[in-house]
Amino acid sequence: MSRRAIYPGTFDPLTNGHVDIIARACHLFDEVIVAILVNPGKQPMFTVDERVEMLNEELGPRFPRVRIETFEGLLVDYAMKCEAQAIIRGVRSVKDYEYELPMILMNRRLNPLVETVLLVAAEDTSYISSSLIKEVFSLGGTIDGLVPDLIVERMNNKIRAGL
Amino acid sequence: MSRRAIYPGTFDPLTNGHVDIIARACHLFDEVIVAILVNPGKQPMFTVDERVEMLNEELGPRFPRVRIETFEGLLVDYAMKCEAQAIIRGVRSVKDYEYELPMILMNRRLNPLVETVLLVAAEDTSYISSSLIKEVFSLGGTIDGLVPDLIVERMNNKIRAGL
Amino acid sequence: MSRRAIYPGTFDPLTNGHVDIIARACHLFDEVIVAILVNPGKQPMFTVDERVEMLNEELGPRFPRVRIETFEGLLVDYAMKCEAQAIIRGVRSVKDYEYELPMILMNRRLNPLVETVLLVAAEDTSYISSSLIKEVFSLGGTIDGLVPDLIVERMNNKIRAGL
Amino acid sequence: MSRRAIYPGTFDPLTNGHVDIIARACHLFDEVIVAILVNPGKQPMFTVDERVEMLNEELGPRFPRVRIETFEGLLVDYAMKCEAQAIIRGVRSVKDYEYELPMILMNRRLNPLVETVLLVAAEDTSYISSSLIKEVFSLGGTIDGLVPDLIVERMNNKIRAGL
Amino acid sequence: MSRRAIYPGTFDPLTNGHVDIIARACHLFDEVIVAILVNPGKQPMFTVDERVEMLNEELGPRFPRVRIETFEGLLVDYAMKCEAQAIIRGVRSVKDYEYELPMILMNRRLNPLVETVLLVAAEDTSYISSSLIKEVFSLGGTIDGLVPDLIVERMNNKIRAGL
Amino acid sequence: MSRRAIYPGTFDPLTNGHVDIIARACHLFDEVIVAILVNPGKQPMFTVDERVEMLNEELGPRFPRVRIETFEGLLVDYAMKCEAQAIIRGVRSVKDYEYELPMILMNRRLNPLVETVLLVAAEDTSYISSSLIKEVFSLGGTIDGLVPDLIVERMNNKIRAGL
Repeated sequence: MSRRAIYPGTFDPLTNGHVDIIARACHLFDEVIVAILVNPGKQPMFTVDERVEMLNEELGPRFPRVRIETFEGLLVDYAMKCEAQAIIRGVRSVKDYEYELPMILMNRRLNPLVETVLLVAAEDTSYISSSLIKEVFSLGGTIDGLVPDLIVERMNNKIRAGL
Repeated sequence: MSRRAIYPGTFDPLTNGHVDIIARACHLFDEVIVAILVNPGKQPMFTVDERVEMLNEELGPRFPRVRIETFEGLLVDYAMKCEAQAIIRGVRSVKDYEYELPMILMNRRLNPLVETVLLVAAEDTSYISSSLIKEVFSLGGTIDGLVPDLIVERMNNKIRAGL
Repeated sequence: MSRRAIYPGTFDPLTNGHVDIIARACHLFDEVIVAILVNPGKQPMFTVDERVEMLNEELGPRFPRVRIETFEGLLVDYAMKCEAQAIIRGVRSVKDYEYELPMILMNRRLNPLVETVLLVAAEDTSYISSSLIKEVFSLGGTIDGLVPDLIVERMNNKIRAGL
Repeated sequence: MSRRAIYPGTFDPLTNGHVDIIARACHLFDEVIVAILVNPGKQPMFTVDERVEMLNEELGPRFPRVRIETFEGLLVDYAMKCEAQAIIRGVRSVKDYEYELPMILMNRRLNPLVETVLLVAAEDTSYISSSLIKEVFSLGGTIDGLVPDLIVERMNNKIRAGL
Repeated sequence: MSRRAIYPGTFDPLTNGHVDIIARACHLFDEVIVAILVNPGKQPMFTVDERVEMLNEELGPRFPRVRIETFEGLLVDYAMKCEAQAIIRGVRSVKDYEYELPMILMNRRLNPLVETVLLVAAEDTSYISSSLIKEVFSLGGTIDGLVPDLIVERMNNKIRAGL
Repeated sequence: MSRRAIYPGTFDPLTNGHVDIIARACHLFDEVIVAILVNPGKQPMFTVDERVEMLNEELGPRFPRVRIETFEGLLVDYAMKCEAQAIIRGVRSVKDYEYELPMILMNRRLNPLVETVLLVAAEDTSYISSSLIKEVFSLGGTIDGLVPDLIVERMNNKIRAGL
């Protein structure tokens, strides 16, 4: 039987924390769909198209069983459409666990056929989040080693383009 | 590719919380090894042999892809021997998560090829533990619906045998 | 001596989690005032008047000792005006407990005569919140069984009216 | 309607944290039964009889609506026998909340007619526990102001008697 | 060797919780720099200049080894510029600890020479935060004893000026 | 002014987590006393004398400002005797924080002149504890890189001596 999992998120930007969870998920599933949430309400750093392109460029060569997609609407509906058995979520802390819990139970109620799998983040990525990365970057701090090199480059380009 | 997971524990006794996690694990993996830890230091309610027999009787008919085993020594060594990619742990609370975390990270260091997968307990099993079951039972409270009927029967037999 | 408690909230909308806590509170107190916070800063789904009407319709027949009110200003001042001994708060998680704690201690300092009573949510309502209900609903997910039928109907009417 | 609550514990010894919770409970209920758990498995500092006597001496004059009792067996059975609607538990921390949660849900299942009420400890008693009191006392630290004066005296007598 | 620490924050307004942490920090370090974050994105109650003046007036006479400064940009860069070995953070709860953790680890990565020191808030300030103070004040509740008298006066002046 | 801190523990055995905290403490204080608790109630792996010798051998050359001592009785009394301003505690998790909190507040009450300083463990030591090290070691797992090489050697010697 082929096993497929979805790893949903905004990935704005992709961090080494995300990459760590994706590598773990690939170890457990035959196919991992990295699913970018299209959320019109928020002002992102990178457009959805830019994120699709960056994730393909960064993850494609390293993870042949990863597919990059976008989705909107209910995650469990999207999971069913993809014929995925599992939703992957990385947990870095008690706060993450507490944040995920109501959504896991709600998703389970909405569709009991899709199971959420919690994977524990590598300890050296436990403090990395997209929002903290953006904050440090905006204050001029180095983010090398916290996000893939490609992402550092694109974030620098964004700034230069803004000048 | 065939996916195999280990669900370790003492199962003294098996509860409906365990059964819920086993059902979820079967949804995600091709084979689930329920692995009873042989722990000579503790005085259990049921011997390891009794537990193997009870788990086989209870789980065998319902979960054809479950295998009951026993193990001692390092869990990750046992997982390698079984050619399992994953260790399954159920999480009922922040306390569970905090308890599991150091062991997950230690196991990962001992063997990075074995990933721990956290599954969230069904909310109606979130308060069930083997130790609380034994405590309630010893005080004369009903445990019907909290453990499989077979287990209730065996626990009652234990008491009668003790008279 | 007659015991009166206040159960404050926005109830936008009323969920089965709220109803569960109200039923528990009625078991403990002679009168329970469900007090809708009038909060001009937020854009609610239902107006205060709509909420008063819906809560009366839903709770009135089931809980004869419940009274629906609205309040603004300091909760402890309102509690004194109502001659209530207690404020009821439902707790679903560690996060809820941590969120309530500073407000409980602050309210106690503002008025030591009003005690906050924490009631633990039924486990099958532990993941229900008004905001998650609204999010699921807005994405087209079913909320049947998570809020009273009356509320489902009114939420559907809101949408139809919006067309 | 008369409201009765049980405040169970070992009270070995009674601390100012317990007294604080008892005072709060008296504010909410017509009668509060302080119920000393008879636990033959543990080696206490004071015998059950000594504790009954000390609690009567300390609490009797201050709290006319408090009654001191002892109990064994299931707490909810004892609550039913006493015709109590509520079990009172003090919460000092996340750890306390996490510890109480499974027992609250188990007790609710065993008897849905008895509701557990969580009261938040006064912040200046949040670090006081019977076990920490005994540890500090055994190392020669002062416990004045952390337990009632009567308890300090009896603990000192215990030591002198031991010489 | 002279030891210098930074205590960063918005201090909008200064609370007795802040003053408690500052007193503790002065006990441990030769010099404590209270560093007001200049955060143009937020609409504060008091301007940065007003806060500098108020903190100098309140803290100057009581804590001769405290210096009031302002900063923007990365906290660790500012700490280096000040030749400070430590960043002081007060912790009131699990929530505070969880909030601080990623920032501590990120700051450590950005500059391993600056260590974050967590000090536990006095229990009677554990529920005080600038935002809760402002909320209580705006609803007409008393904040006496929760912030220095000088701050109460200035907050009252703000209101009167607004009329 | 010279600043002195105590880092208390059983150090049975010393781990790289302890060494990490000691290094951080040395960055903040002029002198750090590593204080081994003499606890006659517990059966340790290494005697107190062995631990004193091992800590001196391991820490002496690397940390000239560290002194190894033993103590019994109240920690704050010992701290006063040493003329230390601070007690150092490492925090690896919410569980650690919750465990430390009552002891910090109790110690503060017993002696307000001694402040407890919490330092956050390096993320790659966050799962290391003496007890988990001993458990892994006893099951035949490698502890290289988790404790200093000297400790690995001594633990191996213990086993050989036991044969």
